Amino acid sequence: MRIKLINPNTTWSMTDKMAAAARAVAMPGTEIVAVSPQGGPASIEGHYDEAVATIGLLEEIRSGEAQGFDGYIIACFGDPGLMAARELANGPVVGIAEAAMHMASLIAPGFSVVTTLARTKGIAEHLAERYGMARFCRKVRATDIAVLELEDPASNAGTRIIEECRAALREDESGAIVLGCAGMADLAAEISRAIGAPVVEGVTAAVTLVESLVRLNLKTSKRGELAPPLPKSYSGGLAYLSP
Amino acid sequence: MRIKLINPNTTWSMTDKMAAAARAVAMPGTEIVAVSPQGGPASIEGHYDEAVATIGLLEEIRSGEAQGFDGYIIACFGDPGLMAARELANGPVVGIAEAAMHMASLIAPGFSVVTTLARTKGIAEHLAERYGMARFCRKVRATDIAVLELEDPASNAGTRIIEECRAALREDESGAIVLGCAGMADLAAEISRAIGAPVVEGVTAAVTLVESLVRLNLKTSKRGELAPPLPKSYSGGLAYLSP
Amino acid sequence: MRIKLINPNTTWSMTDKMAAAARAVAMPGTEIVAVSPQGGPASIEGHYDEAVATIGLLEEIRSGEAQGFDGYIIACFGDPGLMAARELANGPVVGIAEAAMHMASLIAPGFSVVTTLARTKGIAEHLAERYGMARFCRKVRATDIAVLELEDPASNAGTRIIEECRAALREDESGAIVLGCAGMADLAAEISRAIGAPVVEGVTAAVTLVESLVRLNLKTSKRGELAPPLPKSYSGGLAYLSP
Amino acid sequence: MRIKLINPNTTWSMTDKMAAAARAVAMPGTEIVAVSPQGGPASIEGHYDEAVATIGLLEEIRSGEAQGFDGYIIACFGDPGLMAARELANGPVVGIAEAAMHMASLIAPGFSVVTTLARTKGIAEHLAERYGMARFCRKVRATDIAVLELEDPASNAGTRIIEECRAALREDESGAIVLGCAGMADLAAEISRAIGAPVVEGVTAAVTLVESLVRLNLKTSKRGELAPPLPKSYSGGLAYLSP
Amino acid sequence: MRIKLINPNTTWSMTDKMAAAARAVAMPGTEIVAVSPQGGPASIEGHYDEAVATIGLLEEIRSGEAQGFDGYIIACFGDPGLMAARELANGPVVGIAEAAMHMASLIAPGFSVVTTLARTKGIAEHLAERYGMARFCRKVRATDIAVLELEDPASNAGTRIIEECRAALREDESGAIVLGCAGMADLAAEISRAIGAPVVEGVTAAVTLVESLVRLNLKTSKRGELAPPLPKSYSGGLAYLSP
Amino acid sequence: MRIKLINPNTTWSMTDKMAAAARAVAMPGTEIVAVSPQGGPASIEGHYDEAVATIGLLEEIRSGEAQGFDGYIIACFGDPGLMAARELANGPVVGIAEAAMHMASLIAPGFSVVTTLARTKGIAEHLAERYGMARFCRKVRATDIAVLELEDPASNAGTRIIEECRAALREDESGAIVLGCAGMADLAAEISRAIGAPVVEGVTAAVTLVESLVRLNLKTSKRGELAPPLPKSYSGGLAYLSP
Repeated sequence: MRIKLINPNTTWSMTDKMAAAARAVAMPGTEIVAVSPQGGPASIEGHYDEAVATIGLLEEIRSGEAQGFDGYIIACFGDPGLMAARELANGPVVGIAEAAMHMASLIAPGFSVVTTLARTKGIAEHLAERYGMARFCRKVRATDIAVLELEDPASNAGTRIIEECRAALREDESGAIVLGCAGMADLAAEISRAIGAPVVEGVTAAVTLVESLVRLNLKTSKRGELAPPLPKSYSGGLAYLSP
Repeated sequence: MRIKLINPNTTWSMTDKMAAAARAVAMPGTEIVAVSPQGGPASIEGHYDEAVATIGLLEEIRSGEAQGFDGYIIACFGDPGLMAARELANGPVVGIAEAAMHMASLIAPGFSVVTTLARTKGIAEHLAERYGMARFCRKVRATDIAVLELEDPASNAGTRIIEECRAALREDESGAIVLGCAGMADLAAEISRAIGAPVVEGVTAAVTLVESLVRLNLKTSKRGELAPPLPKSYSGGLAYLSP
Repeated sequence: MRIKLINPNTTWSMTDKMAAAARAVAMPGTEIVAVSPQGGPASIEGHYDEAVATIGLLEEIRSGEAQGFDGYIIACFGDPGLMAARELANGPVVGIAEAAMHMASLIAPGFSVVTTLARTKGIAEHLAERYGMARFCRKVRATDIAVLELEDPASNAGTRIIEECRAALREDESGAIVLGCAGMADLAAEISRAIGAPVVEGVTAAVTLVESLVRLNLKTSKRGELAPPLPKSYSGGLAYLSP
Repeated sequence: MRIKLINPNTTWSMTDKMAAAARAVAMPGTEIVAVSPQGGPASIEGHYDEAVATIGLLEEIRSGEAQGFDGYIIACFGDPGLMAARELANGPVVGIAEAAMHMASLIAPGFSVVTTLARTKGIAEHLAERYGMARFCRKVRATDIAVLELEDPASNAGTRIIEECRAALREDESGAIVLGCAGMADLAAEISRAIGAPVVEGVTAAVTLVESLVRLNLKTSKRGELAPPLPKSYSGGLAYLSP
Repeated sequence: MRIKLINPNTTWSMTDKMAAAARAVAMPGTEIVAVSPQGGPASIEGHYDEAVATIGLLEEIRSGEAQGFDGYIIACFGDPGLMAARELANGPVVGIAEAAMHMASLIAPGFSVVTTLARTKGIAEHLAERYGMARFCRKVRATDIAVLELEDPASNAGTRIIEECRAALREDESGAIVLGCAGMADLAAEISRAIGAPVVEGVTAAVTLVESLVRLNLKTSKRGELAPPLPKSYSGGLAYLSP
Repeated sequence: MRIKLINPNTTWSMTDKMAAAARAVAMPGTEIVAVSPQGGPASIEGHYDEAVATIGLLEEIRSGEAQGFDGYIIACFGDPGLMAARELANGPVVGIAEAAMHMASLIAPGFSVVTTLARTKGIAEHLAERYGMARFCRKVRATDIAVLELEDPASNAGTRIIEECRAALREDESGAIVLGCAGMADLAAEISRAIGAPVVEGVTAAVTLVESLVRLNLKTSKRGELAPPLPKSYSGGLAYLSP
């Protein structure tokens, strides 16, 4: 099976890190193709970044359909463009926030999300609601670490995240932690050891969920809301995206 | 006061129709500048159309800020890009679905939305939830009229919409109707007469709400989620959109 | 257009203050007639006060209909008698809590209400739920200032309210403040300057909303729940209120 | 124990009917004093009727406190004035909608309310929400019988109510029926026999609940929202109601 | 009337304490038969304890039906086996958490539950949701007192519970306390005196509710979900439980 | 990896059918051990059946822990004993209703559950709420097929289920179907072909989810609610279950 893992930002060091995490958990027969779009924001930290990054993401879904992928992962914790991507794709498309939250709900009565900048908390809270996971999500906590700081060894990001996770266990009485940024894909095991509680990371969770859906022969339903985009002309610089 | 009314699709006949409706309700001192983006989908009928149209919409918000507009209207019933636009704008930004639903909730204990294609019903339902209007929105009803059919006098769209509105009053026990497409901006008065109940149309509702916010000196809060996009480099074809 | 602004308590100094705030924001062609009922509580600080004050309010709506008003404002943050008033009125009736909450939801992802006595918090929370605004209302905060203290310059009310607003921004992570008493109608600008965030005041918000509804030709729906009261005899001291 | 059963409308034939139903279920040592206010609406069929009837109701609560009653029943299915009454009373105050819905939730996973006029459906739905009973209340159904028709043997009301109850069991898959008007207090047993399912009637349910609270020595909590009204002057015709 | 009060744990000193509390509040004509099952957990402090204790509980319901009881009380705050018991019983079955929460909602706008071990908080929160009482239940608070410590005079349990109740009134702004363990049945009056607020205890509340339902001739609805178990063979050690 | 698939009823023909379905989807390295308890109900069609079947289920979890299984599947659509099982198990435990609903939410904006007897509908609805899936679950539909009829080729069950699925797509506007009984594990592919929409079956879905959790090294959180049962003595016939 071939899965396209799309990091919607253009920081390839993050993409490579995610690819490594994804491959470490993938089934033997699964090929993970990890990409960033050809253009777009270097990091995604708000609604505007998300809106622009969605274009590159959708380009990758379109090319992915031509390339015959079995499924897709949207590897940014805001799950940008998820519903639009599902209109385009025949196979399943899973966002990493979606994947992590669902998985966390299976192993704990409540979880906390530990994310980067405070300005993104509302996005995560809205996703929790959309996925039905608000009743499990006890709190979204920001560390005030910018996304690209996660790529900087001098940022001490790991330590700061661990501290926030400990506060989450203690104050939110959560049973598990959901890591709120794809850039944390390499930290899950270390954090879990440090805090003594399950830590759910979205990239790896999404790999197993897409594999699961493909194995179950479950594709995006094309009845109603997620049917392919209607054929119509787009004009201007984005005309090449016409359905 | 100057308000930029942005029709996120590129069908200027619709934009002109909305402009006329907007100006008919605007206050004497209000200038309505109605535009469509320079490129994008000719109509918006799903998540993918919305995602692509959002780029043109955001371009218009950006240029609008340079042009010194006091407020903005997103004139498509899916309210695409609303939160991203609010990050960019200093003044208020109101979507027409948002405007119509809020207004309807002030005059009736429940309303029905009568919209175009069935595939867009989920989008309207999700907006109702986001705006807190789900408790007032008794049903979203599709007429299976495509957006551009509304521009075609031969489509008999008005009659079909009126029939659906009557069914809404009878079956949903709704007290008011919300028209679910900006392309219906010229039909509200006629439909209201025909069905004998209030009909709320989003473009005109949004004009009065943006004017109200400007008069109250209420601008988009820049604390937290809707702060301006963080400065960062975007690459590729959309690099010109870098914050 | 003529709008009747009804302060349901009988403290005319408050009524005058509201009238000034209302006129400052009203459109040139709008006449604001501000009244208190001929009798009733001097201030409204609980359910019982509300219940009794509703009678005077309804008298003013009834006389207002005879006087041909286009719309009404209920200028007490508990919005007493709102639904009963809507049965009586042909035009729109808007409560100031309703108006302020709706407006705040258009400019911030979340707001806090800063009100007077703690005993009224439940009333505001219930209104937030009824209007669909509970998802935006992060907290209702009491200052323990009695309503009539707001009329007393020696009460230092402004300073205490500003402190509570600052706590709201910091602890509730709210993007805007809703002032929870009509007696604060003159304080909004000052507080907003002091705290550096939007402050929504209900009397002024309601003026623009009623004007908006009238301009949109939207009247209270008379289908179902809000139809005029059924003709029937009332007896005793309130017989003059018979529909 | 002495319980004051207050029918907020002034139709004493209904009051007498309720008194009989109440006494039939009361404990041996319970004295039921059933009254209508000295003035007010002859029947309550909407928000305006409720608002006016609340004054007479509150007069009866006030005199009841002077008379030393142990608890109160508000015997109109809209439970008008419930929270205001609780501010006045030391002992418990229970509404008949409240009582019936709570009791029904103990014997069936879902119930339907069968009420009088369609215009009152929203009131019952709102009460179900306030009491937490919305998850049990599958539907509120109107029979289009006016309240005073229930007093008219020629109205054939019983038969029409039974038909609606049968539809409720069949279509709503409800396990029990809640009768939605105090004027149906004498019909519960007959309807239950006819439809073969439990029928919960509010007057009798409220008698047992008030008795239960009194036996448990549970009085209305005077902490916060339901504390006694603050002393203040009321003016005008209702000045006699000053706290 | 005969009510079977079933303490699902096997600690008879608790059963006796509950029986005394129940009899103290029961009506003159009510016979309270208080039992523990013949086997099962000595205390119930989690889902597993509940699951095993449910068998003994159901045995007692089955024998209770043969013995002709009019109604049943499940006297453990987790209300284990409530829905299964209702399938078996013709008369009403009430859980003590259910009873206490409903009663508390009639006398206060919000209550806090004060319970034993922190691990049981989720169970109480889930029950509050099921019963519709989540909107009244402001917080579930643990005292970290094990259930059987309540039987030990040296445990100082009363004092610790009173402290937690005081914190609940102060921090949760609750108007009443619900005691979260049947083992606290003898403490309600003392705690109420100490904290100056109503304290609702489930065993006594359930007695009055079962009596109320029986007096109202309301039995468990046998339509749909709570119909008697379908006849079928059970095998193995529990074969004697075959319906 | 070794997964114990527990069919909580004692009908081994169903267990074998589930085992075959499970093995057909399992990864190469996964060993599926499928069992029914040594005793208990032959089928599970209500709360009482569930309560009794839970004992056998928990026995299998206990022995499973001694046998060193990596994870567990509860293969009955009511997910009986799920939380109790999670207290016992170190590895993950997934119910088939839980698994199917989560998976369906990833591929469709809404799904319908098609189950067996109408009396079990409430159970499925409650599970949907607990798992956060109520917003996706548009309707639970009964076919009035008893569980063991599914084992009888003469029952024509497949055809009847397909008809109900078609009604679900048409009337509920659902995008996918969730099969509401483990006994339908062999029908998913056939039904999906017949109706032209995705069909999610719980046994197979649960296999992939447990495998996913094990691969992600995610075990049941032992913090708080799901910690191992506290050591204590159980008495009587179930004393062997003492923690």
